[in-house]
Formats: sequence, structure tokens, C-alpha cells
Amino acid sequence: MAEVATPLIERLVVVGLGLIGGSFAKGARASGLCREVVGIDRDPETRRLAVELGVVDRCVAELAEACPGADVIQLAVPILAMERVLAELAALPLQGAILTDVGSAKGNVVRAARQAFAGQSLRFVPGHPIAGSERSGVTAANAALFNRHKVILTPLEETLPADLDKVDRLWRAIGADVEHMTVEHHDQVLAATSHLPHLLAFNLVDSLAKRSENREIFHYAAGGFRDFTRIAGSDPTMWHDIFIANREAVLQALDTYRADLDELRGAIQAGDGQFLMEVLTHARGAREYFGRILASRTQAGAQVAAHHSLTEGHS
Amino acid sequence: MAEVATPLIERLVVVGLGLIGGSFAKGARASGLCREVVGIDRDPETRRLAVELGVVDRCVAELAEACPGADVIQLAVPILAMERVLAELAALPLQGAILTDVGSAKGNVVRAARQAFAGQSLRFVPGHPIAGSERSGVTAANAALFNRHKVILTPLEETLPADLDKVDRLWRAIGADVEHMTVEHHDQVLAATSHLPHLLAFNLVDSLAKRSENREIFHYAAGGFRDFTRIAGSDPTMWHDIFIANREAVLQALDTYRADLDELRGAIQAGDGQFLMEVLTHARGAREYFGRILASRTQAGAQVAAHHSLTEGHS
Repeated sequence: MAEVATPLIERLVVVGLGLIGGSFAKGARASGLCREVVGIDRDPETRRLAVELGVVDRCVAELAEACPGADVIQLAVPILAMERVLAELAALPLQGAILTDVGSAKGNVVRAARQAFAGQSLRFVPGHPIAGSERSGVTAANAALFNRHKVILTPLEETLPADLDKVDRLWRAIGADVEHMTVEHHDQVLAATSHLPHLLAFNLVDSLAKRSENREIFHYAAGGFRDFTRIAGSDPTMWHDIFIANREAVLQALDTYRADLDELRGAIQAGDGQFLMEVLTHARGAREYFGRILASRTQAGAQVAAHHSLTEGHS
Repeated sequence: MAEVATPLIERLVVVGLGLIGGSFAKGARASGLCREVVGIDRDPETRRLAVELGVVDRCVAELAEACPGADVIQLAVPILAMERVLAELAALPLQGAILTDVGSAKGNVVRAARQAFAGQSLRFVPGHPIAGSERSGVTAANAALFNRHKVILTPLEETLPADLDKVDRLWRAIGADVEHMTVEHHDQVLAATSHLPHLLAFNLVDSLAKRSENREIFHYAAGGFRDFTRIAGSDPTMWHDIFIANREAVLQALDTYRADLDELRGAIQAGDGQFLMEVLTHARGAREYFGRILASRTQAGAQVAAHHSLTEGHS
């Protein structure tokens, strides 16, 4: 938590004070890097609580009240609401504010931003913090939420190095491990490691539940199924938005998965024990490798990081 | 733990003293329902430990040394070893011993038993305890392992009611919640709730790992993926055997799953938000229902049950 004489940022505006936006705002305030952190939220109770809980210095209802004159504008609204907010922002005199966001998929936000700012200068540093909590809303805002968690920034061709650096420094000051990659790579990696697993889990639970009218089958479920149902208990609206927003990469990951699944199916049908053992052994090896990564993260991180990594946040 | 003047069983033989066989033997001994519990294991060290740890009264190396004259013979060997053990048993003078087993799939064991005992009387009560532990081997044997866990018995047409009752009473004395169903239904239910989830998880982890040579992708994995990798860390040999043993039911469950997955894929591609929301909401509803089942189990059960249900055992 750096204390600086001259703030990096005069005014930081955070649009949407849910868990992610609220935690970012609170962390940014605590970092000492911003002279002023202003929240924007449509809900009067959220605005009241955000000030009361020290999440922001002040809070307003409309973009026009705080965005003109801001240095950095963090978009922390649901991913399918980004388009509308970006269109509103494009109509305001932003005077060169840096835009950044926390969406779980980047391609669609970038498309929306380019469309909204067509013919104008767009200073955009897309971002995605891989962190979350089972709690939600401004009351769950936690300045340490991103501590030791990965934040991926996906600079565009036209992103100015100084803008990327400013957003990067802000996230690091909040405790995040920041990495940079392309928009396309981000969307592919997240599709494979997060969106596809959720899709498979939702499908399994729905597929079983809709075929067993009395749900008798659930009474016999043990370990394997329980892990799937935990995933499938995630917020439907949020995941609907993610699947739609990252559609292309999700479908691509799904098709690769399905081709491998067909091959595995063929091996079981043919009684090809050797192929089967190769897949299962390979999977366990990868699992052990992943376990070591998690262990090293936990050693490096604080208890709070271990706690928060229990669930994955998305916005 | 009932104490009876006249034991229900004079001699119980448990073939294979791994976690499941050892825990069954130890629990049966503690139940007071057996005058003698004899273990059979090929490994000299296991035989020594089984006696030292009080898992069995005595332990021998060969079926022929303990099975003739036994009342009940529990087969707790790996599922693909059942065929060989059954063939050996069929060559012994069993004098009407009741056979039972703990295999995770029942159809293949029943087929092997009928084949081995063709032309002889077969007194078989197939069974499957849905319990386990992350530990394995005779040193992990725990008389309370099956406490409050489901044990499914799948009597055959020719199974004598008195034989079913005897095996049922033994499991209940060990603390299990015993249910009866047909072989076919058991194999379908387990394929759907356990074998299919494991297959999907193994495939996901292998599919991702083999395409990312540097495994960079694992560094970005969070909640959803972690649940999958936990499943995929299970013993490859055991799962190879289960997929082969329950092949038909596993393929049937997989095909149903794939058909639904294809439909979900189509909805994402078409941007059919309504269909997508229905699936995701339905899945969450089923997850909440399942959560209530688990909660009621935990309330009813002891702490030890909650601990052991963390992983699912198979043999």
C-alpha cells in the first residue's frame, strides 16, 4: 500500500458498486494513489452504503455527474450492460479519461467500445480480475479482495503505454498480480479454464434433473457429482451473460472438448484399455501439476487470498 | 452395534483387505454379529497388519484356506479381478456360502458370477457401498467408514430372501443406510451420478493439458476448473476398471449428456437467451435441492460421516 505525495490519479470513477466494483474502489482509496474515488450507482441504498462504509469518497447516480474530468473510469457493471454504459460515456466530454473494465470476457467489450467511440479517440485498457467471493453487493466490498489474485489486462493496439502503466500500477497497489495478454488469448484461456467447466457442470445437473422427475437419483450422488453441483449453483444471469459475451471462444473450447470426448467414448466402447489409461494418467499428472501451482500460490499468499480463491468472481 | 448371544454369522470371510474390505471386516468384527472374521489377502505385510490392527481375527493367503465352511464371503477385490476370484471360488466346495461384493458396477460382476457358477447353485447378494476416503490400504481400515453412508444391494431373481436379509443386517449393524434396487437401475444411477462426472472431468483436464505444452493455461485457472481437477486426481487404474466394467450404462449416460450438450451449444450459437436461462436456472434449482439433501444427511449423520463423504470410494 504505497503512500505518495502526488497522487497518480486525481479522480477515479468506479461505475457499478457491486462486489468487484466496490472492492476495487475501496482498495484504490486505501492505496493512497487517488486524490478522489467517486462511485456511480443507480441504486440509492447502494450509494448511501458506499459512502457510509468508506468504499468511495462520494457517490452519484449519473455518469454525467462524475465522468467528465475523471482521470480513470473503471467499468464494473454486468458484462452485457457495458455496451449501454459505453454508448452513454461516448456522448460525454471525457477530456481524455482512461477507460478500463472488469468484464469476464474482453472481445465483446472491446467491440462495444470501438463501436461507441467510432470517430473519437478511445483510451481503453480492458481488464479482468480473477477473483470473487460467495458474497455480493456493496456490503461485501473488501479492499483486500484482489490481494494475490491475478488481474489480466488486455491492451489494444492503440492503447497508450502510459495508460496501461497507470491502470497496471493501480491494480498492483491493491495487491493484485497483474499480467498482460491479448484480448483473444484472454478469451480463449478463460473459455477453457472457467467458462467451459461451468457450461459442462450446468449441463450435467440440468440433464440429470430434467430426466428424473422425482429426483431420486440425487439421493445416491457422492463426490464426483457434488463437485459439479457446486459449480452449477452459480448465478444463472451472470453465466448467461458470460456465455453470450464470450460466445465464440466458448464454442471453440466446447468443440475441442467434444472431439476429445468422442475419442474417449470410442475407446471405452472398443474396450481400448491402453488409450483409456493414457487419458486418465495424463489427467492425474496435470492435476498434480495444478496442485503444485495452487500450493505455491497459497504459500506466497496470505490466508485471505486462500479464502477468496474458494469462489471465482465474474462481472 | 448390537451384541447378540448367538452370532448371525459363524464365519465371515473378506477377500481383499484394502480400505473398503478392511473397513467392512473391522466393522463386522465390532458389530458382534460374527463369531469369526477371516481375511484373505495375497500381500504378506497386509495380512500381518490386518491382524495387528484388529481388522480381522486371522488372515490367510488362499481362498481355499478359509472359504469352504464360511457363511458369508465378501469380495472386496478390484472390480476387474472379480472374475478370476469368482472362478476360483466356483472350484471350491463352498457348501452354500453366501457371496456378496462391493464392486462399483454390478452388471459385470453378476455376469461373471453366473458364468463361473454355471450349473451350480449361486447364492449371490451383489452390493455397493457408496463411501470412501482419500486414504487407502489396510492401515486406513476404519470400522465407522460406512456409518450413515448408503449401501446399495442389488438382489438377483434367484437370491434367497434369507440371504439378502443376512447381508442387509450385517451392513446395517456397521451403520450403513441400506437400499435395494435392481442391478440395471444401480448401474444407471451410478453411471449418471458418479461415473459420467468423473469421465467428463478426466476428459477436460486431459484435453486442456495436452494442448498447452507449457501448461500456461493452468496459471489462470480458478474455481470452476479447480473442482474438475480435484475429480480428475482420482486413481486412474480404479477408474479405468469402472469405465470398462460399467461400459454400457456409462456410454448410455454419456450419449444422453452429449445430446443435451449439443442442444445447449445450439442455444449459445443462436444467442437463444431464453433457453440458456432455463437450463442455468433449472441447474441451480436442482443444485439447491441437492444441497438440502446433503444438509439433511449431515444433520442426521455424525461428523465422521461428513468427513468421509468428502471423497467417494470405489472398488
